[in-house]
Amino acid sequence: MPLRNIKLTISYDGTHFHGWQIQPTLQTIQGTLADAIERVTNAGVCPQGSGRTDAGVHALAQVATFTTASSIPSSNLRKALNSLLPETIRVVSVDEVPPDFHARRSAKAKTYQYRIYAGEVCPPFLAKYVHHNPYPLRFEPMVAAAKLIVGEHDFTSFAAVDPEKHKNKDEPASNVRTIFSSQWERDGDVLTYTVSGNGFLHHMVRNLVGTFLLVGKETIPPERVTTILDQRSRTAAGPTAPPQGLFLVRVEY
Amino acid sequence: MPLRNIKLTISYDGTHFHGWQIQPTLQTIQGTLADAIERVTNAGVCPQGSGRTDAGVHALAQVATFTTASSIPSSNLRKALNSLLPETIRVVSVDEVPPDFHARRSAKAKTYQYRIYAGEVCPPFLAKYVHHNPYPLRFEPMVAAAKLIVGEHDFTSFAAVDPEKHKNKDEPASNVRTIFSSQWERDGDVLTYTVSGNGFLHHMVRNLVGTFLLVGKETIPPERVTTILDQRSRTAAGPTAPPQGLFLVRVEY
Repeated sequence: MPLRNIKLTISYDGTHFHGWQIQPTLQTIQGTLADAIERVTNAGVCPQGSGRTDAGVHALAQVATFTTASSIPSSNLRKALNSLLPETIRVVSVDEVPPDFHARRSAKAKTYQYRIYAGEVCPPFLAKYVHHNPYPLRFEPMVAAAKLIVGEHDFTSFAAVDPEKHKNKDEPASNVRTIFSSQWERDGDVLTYTVSGNGFLHHMVRNLVGTFLLVGKETIPPERVTTILDQRSRTAAGPTAPPQGLFLVRVEY
Repeated sequence: MPLRNIKLTISYDGTHFHGWQIQPTLQTIQGTLADAIERVTNAGVCPQGSGRTDAGVHALAQVATFTTASSIPSSNLRKALNSLLPETIRVVSVDEVPPDFHARRSAKAKTYQYRIYAGEVCPPFLAKYVHHNPYPLRFEPMVAAAKLIVGEHDFTSFAAVDPEKHKNKDEPASNVRTIFSSQWERDGDVLTYTVSGNGFLHHMVRNLVGTFLLVGKETIPPERVTTILDQRSRTAAGPTAPPQGLFLVRVEY
């Protein structure tokens, strides 16, 4: 049988998973997905994601690829996987792609969203999907700060200080990334940050949001973001915002 | 100290609770709330809800009352309770009410919503808050069927067959209730049933929805609902729809 290259688009609620990456004794998205694929195709595989998500981080449309000798049609594969997966992980679509397509290496752009609930009492239905900030925030400075990261920059200041732990051998050693758009929107008490770029360093979105929150609290002025980028030091930026507000929204190829 | 009568409006995600009613060894909304009130006021109380909700059923604005000798101001009480309660239960507001106000006995109207996800793949973020029905449904007959229950009717056919278990001694023995409005709305793949009435029997909303689903699947015609009401027998109606789609939305006094 010729090997087929399969692209899965999946949505998951990351609340009760120890992140994307497979780990020996912990429940992870990649591990749970690998088990389901093995049961359907009768062959062990390790699906490759477009990138890792941390524990508690969600995805609307993560992309993963794997190769299989199975001839099961794509639409049946989706149904079979969804019947085996927990309801917190859903395969939204299955496509057969050319052999050289790779979920991570072929990605041209990724979009993340981070949501903050700014009201006094956080609705229980949102608690696992937002970061609750009940303290006063000035929104306009946050909007201004977000715009300053658009373009090509060295994002060392916003990268987790764990260079080996989260680096793939085929990823660029540089911390330079290009951000296509970076903006805050407000809908009632929900503030949503949406950022698109050609790649993101580990914790980068959460560290950006943690810094924008310092701007919103007027601890630092918005233009400080440019200085922080220039300093190329993690200690220059704000704290890492908690994981549950973060969603991987889209991967483009 | 004079006793104050306190009205709490609370919102909860019922997913991981064994329903409203306090039980010796299980985690319940009422029990969790009672523990928090006792810690804040230093006196044991059993808050009285406007009604019970079953395991897995949610509330946007359940109402509960209790009396206390504590002089803690209402706004501080809300903050203190929310700091002790899990994030799945939130006190939305606290009001001091006249001594004769009672969450259940004083209620004039209640509104419930039931949500169905009718798309093929249920988003993981909705799974605990909808009933997923991926089978074909005809919507217009469901709309027509829902309208037939408006007005005063004997709802025996839609009541759980457990008359003693869920009856309060001060509730009317009759199964006659008045429904003020009963309607389905559709927003993309989400179908929402909203019903208001002067009272609801145990499982009544879920049994109505289970019957409307039979109408949507064309197992029975919409006008059969009138016959089912006339039969006054639980076996005449459809199955009980699962709990996670149900929300107590509002209680009016």
